[in-house]
Amino acid sequence: MFIWGSKLNKMKKITAGSGLLFIISFLIISNDVFCQSENDKDSVMMRKIFDYELLNGACYRNLTYLCTKIGPRLTGSPQAEQAVNWTKNLMESYGFDSVYLQPVMVPHWVRGEKEIARIITTRGEIPVAVTALGNSVGTGEKGIRARVVEVKSMEALDSLGEDKIKGKIVFFDQRMDPRLISTDMAYGIAGIQRNHGPARAASYGAIGVVVRSLTTRMDHVPHTGATLYEENITKIPAIAISTLDADVLDSLLNVNPATEFFFEDHCQMLDDVLSHNVVGVIRGSAFPDQIIDVGGHLDSWDLAQGAEDDGAGVMHSIEVLKILKSIGYHPRHTIRAVLFMNEENGLRGGRKYSALATANKEKHIAAIESDNGCFSPIGFGMDADNTKIMKLQSWAGLFRPYGLWRFEKGEGGADISTLKSLNVPLIGFMPDAQKYFKYHHSPLDAINIVDERELELGAASITSLVYLIDQYGM
Amino acid sequence: MFIWGSKLNKMKKITAGSGLLFIISFLIISNDVFCQSENDKDSVMMRKIFDYELLNGACYRNLTYLCTKIGPRLTGSPQAEQAVNWTKNLMESYGFDSVYLQPVMVPHWVRGEKEIARIITTRGEIPVAVTALGNSVGTGEKGIRARVVEVKSMEALDSLGEDKIKGKIVFFDQRMDPRLISTDMAYGIAGIQRNHGPARAASYGAIGVVVRSLTTRMDHVPHTGATLYEENITKIPAIAISTLDADVLDSLLNVNPATEFFFEDHCQMLDDVLSHNVVGVIRGSAFPDQIIDVGGHLDSWDLAQGAEDDGAGVMHSIEVLKILKSIGYHPRHTIRAVLFMNEENGLRGGRKYSALATANKEKHIAAIESDNGCFSPIGFGMDADNTKIMKLQSWAGLFRPYGLWRFEKGEGGADISTLKSLNVPLIGFMPDAQKYFKYHHSPLDAINIVDERELELGAASITSLVYLIDQYGM
Repeated sequence: MFIWGSKLNKMKKITAGSGLLFIISFLIISNDVFCQSENDKDSVMMRKIFDYELLNGACYRNLTYLCTKIGPRLTGSPQAEQAVNWTKNLMESYGFDSVYLQPVMVPHWVRGEKEIARIITTRGEIPVAVTALGNSVGTGEKGIRARVVEVKSMEALDSLGEDKIKGKIVFFDQRMDPRLISTDMAYGIAGIQRNHGPARAASYGAIGVVVRSLTTRMDHVPHTGATLYEENITKIPAIAISTLDADVLDSLLNVNPATEFFFEDHCQMLDDVLSHNVVGVIRGSAFPDQIIDVGGHLDSWDLAQGAEDDGAGVMHSIEVLKILKSIGYHPRHTIRAVLFMNEENGLRGGRKYSALATANKEKHIAAIESDNGCFSPIGFGMDADNTKIMKLQSWAGLFRPYGLWRFEKGEGGADISTLKSLNVPLIGFMPDAQKYFKYHHSPLDAINIVDERELELGAASITSLVYLIDQYGM
Repeated sequence: MFIWGSKLNKMKKITAGSGLLFIISFLIISNDVFCQSENDKDSVMMRKIFDYELLNGACYRNLTYLCTKIGPRLTGSPQAEQAVNWTKNLMESYGFDSVYLQPVMVPHWVRGEKEIARIITTRGEIPVAVTALGNSVGTGEKGIRARVVEVKSMEALDSLGEDKIKGKIVFFDQRMDPRLISTDMAYGIAGIQRNHGPARAASYGAIGVVVRSLTTRMDHVPHTGATLYEENITKIPAIAISTLDADVLDSLLNVNPATEFFFEDHCQMLDDVLSHNVVGVIRGSAFPDQIIDVGGHLDSWDLAQGAEDDGAGVMHSIEVLKILKSIGYHPRHTIRAVLFMNEENGLRGGRKYSALATANKEKHIAAIESDNGCFSPIGFGMDADNTKIMKLQSWAGLFRPYGLWRFEKGEGGADISTLKSLNVPLIGFMPDAQKYFKYHHSPLDAINIVDERELELGAASITSLVYLIDQYGM
């Protein structure tokens, strides 16, 4: 609060005393400049939004229900459909202008019986904690056993080639770099091995893949996540191993490169099934055909309650409409809460949404996604041209009293990325993410990691941005 | 990162093209300006500090030991002395230039047997969750029972006067205002009833006080904290009640103002005992007689492990010296880690430290305290004149890549506030505090609420600030 207040005071003094040149230089230099009277009106509205939410927020209560009464919501599972129906009913109960489902065929991957894995040494066998990667094929009842080739990067894999890989199990042991302040970036870099490692290893004749879990923590909890097979390359089974057990495997391979590994999993990709996106709408008073989207994804991994990924985003999105309606704000543009299905292993919901938007020639003036967790909000990232980013930054000062200070070029989100071809400005909500990956895609992602107040601050922050876009366009 | 980078680029373009006027206007307007070459040197050093800590940090492991092997460290307790000895040994094991104890006589308040409390209605009695306030006197074996006068502020109490209060139990039911984004401010406002309410109520003849727990959460956990008696006013027993039970009491009083309350506690203030501050030192190479302090407090409440309050600050302080030593940085000024005793109910450690500093004519160029928790760092607050605050702000850009953006006038910390009379610039480390008061002064303040990475980012941030002060003074 102090920083913004002092800058405003300085601005007034300077512009009063020193004429046009200073005004221009200020406009060029500072991203915080905003017309004083509009600023007042907008800061009053934002205060109203935050006050409402901090006193009457329902998103934590709703998230608790989603996580504990419905639970894990793997695409294609009965729980995923329960979540569809429950969120539809919830939004109807809030009296939004309309609530509807978008049917979408989704992949139906199932994990089957719990995975088993062992390191096999000449001195004995050591059971280790693993979980199959999403989309992985199963090993069959007998499992697979082979010598292990350890690599720390895709490049290292490529340099080994077929000779050294054929018939082996490849162990990708790249850790998330703890030095990177952006945990997202650390995830993106190390995540290549999970996304593309199994297909690449298979192209060199590997028979299975073990990936070090993508987490910033050293523990016994394996973290799942999707792997992407490629056409015309054999699909080989792939599992994640806990970070502590990855270190054990690494150590034993150092002692004896002939150390073997066994694992057994029972995953299957079944036929596609029907599922749904859920859409809640408040119709715009002036431009009903121009849409502002705010979304998150309903599905989660089967082993997580999906509180931060992405129950939080679902509840943020519903809450935006609830807040606007409750404080009596009538948006000029149409506001849609979009609860996407199948972000985790297919993005079918996002693709369906944009296909329908294209077919119906819809005009989307901005799409916001909340899929970065539930912790204290720190800003927004934007995937759009620089003019639009500067417009977003011009609002930064309004958010500082609420602890948000990052307004910058960045990612929107996986679901809304499907709207990029329609040239929609994409905005990603950014909460503090230092501990996000500790929980991500594991049983640790449960309601107990969520703080009610932090979740509410996120909902109010996104609502404020929707309000500003509604007022001034994007 | 983006914001800082883009501002730097803009600065270069503007200053190259437009001459002195723009440079001056930029210097006036922006707090981020910093000489480019020094910035480079300093950003390299800060990267080194953060890299070291994120790869080799020991503060989480040490905090785990303090919380789980030693546990609650109420001033005067055997555990408090264990903490003194263990942290002294720990710092000695790190090979700092010297480690020593400062003897200090401290209050020795004990809680005694667990408190009992009941709401007494005409329809029955309801047990409620309470905890005695720190420093409170006991009720005696029989407890106290009386009708209840509920107030929401000190002003409301004053307006009732002796007639309506005499012989009653006063129930202070002001909640922490959830709308305040600064939870510190909400705590400060509602906290007056805990700090000063019992003495004020006693001055009107009350026989006991019940205070609504200071927490942002609705739950069954009562939160303790010190109350301050006043000379020549009867000391009456005072307890905190959980927020949910405070609502129950409020409701029952609404139904029947004649509702009574019973409570029994067994607190006692015993004779002062000997305890210690613990001080670790790295001697300055150029100005050994000029001191930069970095501190936290060793004591905690008896019902909390004291992870966030203030084990985190203790471990931050030790870690600052450990990092500087480990990366081979030889400070020009003397750096002291000061682990204060008795912040919670007396501030005797802080007072002793400043008394010795005064007696020894020490020159302290800055004092930093970490007593605001363990979560992601967001900035520093400073209690000093504007010139010094502007100097602090001139470093802001260096911290932005690490997520710290608030550099502003603020509080230093309770322990170091004792150095204010020596005109020492006081700096308070600011982590994100949205959930701090949920845990504060209750059994919820335990090691499980601490994230290793967030704690390390705090240690590296404080170390960076110590480095900058060592380089450029304060």
